Amino acid sequence: MQKSNEVDQLIYLFSKLPGLGGRSARRIVLHLLQDKDVRLKSLLGGLVSAYEKITKCDTCGNIDTGATCRTCGDPERDSTVIAIVETVAELWAIERSGIFKGRYHVLGGTLSAVNSTNPSHLRLAELKERCGREGVAELIIATNATLDGQTTAYFITEYFKDMTIRVSRLASGIPIGGELDYLDEGTLSAAILQRHAFD
Amino acid sequence: MQKSNEVDQLIYLFSKLPGLGGRSARRIVLHLLQDKDVRLKSLLGGLVSAYEKITKCDTCGNIDTGATCRTCGDPERDSTVIAIVETVAELWAIERSGIFKGRYHVLGGTLSAVNSTNPSHLRLAELKERCGREGVAELIIATNATLDGQTTAYFITEYFKDMTIRVSRLASGIPIGGELDYLDEGTLSAAILQRHAFD
Repeated sequence: MQKSNEVDQLIYLFSKLPGLGGRSARRIVLHLLQDKDVRLKSLLGGLVSAYEKITKCDTCGNIDTGATCRTCGDPERDSTVIAIVETVAELWAIERSGIFKGRYHVLGGTLSAVNSTNPSHLRLAELKERCGREGVAELIIATNATLDGQTTAYFITEYFKDMTIRVSRLASGIPIGGELDYLDEGTLSAAILQRHAFD
Repeated sequence: MQKSNEVDQLIYLFSKLPGLGGRSARRIVLHLLQDKDVRLKSLLGGLVSAYEKITKCDTCGNIDTGATCRTCGDPERDSTVIAIVETVAELWAIERSGIFKGRYHVLGGTLSAVNSTNPSHLRLAELKERCGREGVAELIIATNATLDGQTTAYFITEYFKDMTIRVSRLASGIPIGGELDYLDEGTLSAAILQRHAFD
């Protein structure tokens, strides 16, 4: 053993991050320790300030500095349309597209038999309460097109059936730039079923 | 923009680590922020204690807690044999094999025309001084089998030509478990040239 416990511990911590393993964690730790006062220190500083300042938005569940996030606090955004997403990762993905100007609601997961999550974990009561308070006209269900995401989408549709709110889903179909020959059958079927008038 | 500057800054810092990019950095930052008080805090703790305790070994250049690393401080290890490695990563790799019981010397890089490193960057004067002081009998050049690694190996061989020290190199050949048909010609040539008696 030539590694000290601090190094081992740091490698272990990095190896538990998503997408990393033992080898990539070793590489990162060596990179950080090779220029400790610049590299390790700046990462430390970033983590400390994120730890101190970042909180969850009380309204939508996004993460930001302050109890109300930028999306919820922005008066320019349309508060009558809410996109329902599984996690903050999907919220960021939609924001990167730049096309959506409404608000969000982060479920914090999906219904899943495997992870034994049930509807009470999904912040749906908060959403219903929010729909009444904010005068929401449309809910766009933007869960992933996975089994769990689709199950959750159906559940949400049922959940809001009694309210006079339009509930919509993201379209499924050919990715822009995609070729039909390389597309899976499920996506191609969805693209045909959801075809629309040429405009 | 729905991300606060602290989040963006942290994603940027992670995306600059070796092997990571924008997407993997976003995933890691979300993972950390989703359970800030456990995940982010433990990573912070690991970084702080590494920052405070880890230093470079005065003798060999390994990183450890304290001015003398475990390999140099271990009286059980053979001080007459020194393996010369490019960086701490290669030192760790050799330690993982468990076969080497001598000491190390970390060059801190290779000779490289591209990165314009010259012999003065390689801690070779320290190594020569060490050889006299510690009564070293053999230097094993364990640089990588890359162009720069091999150039450096030849340079080191020349550098120690006048001293009565055995200078050896790691063998090149078929990786254990490897198949000849999938091997590149260079490795196969090396394996044939460096063949040895069946024992």
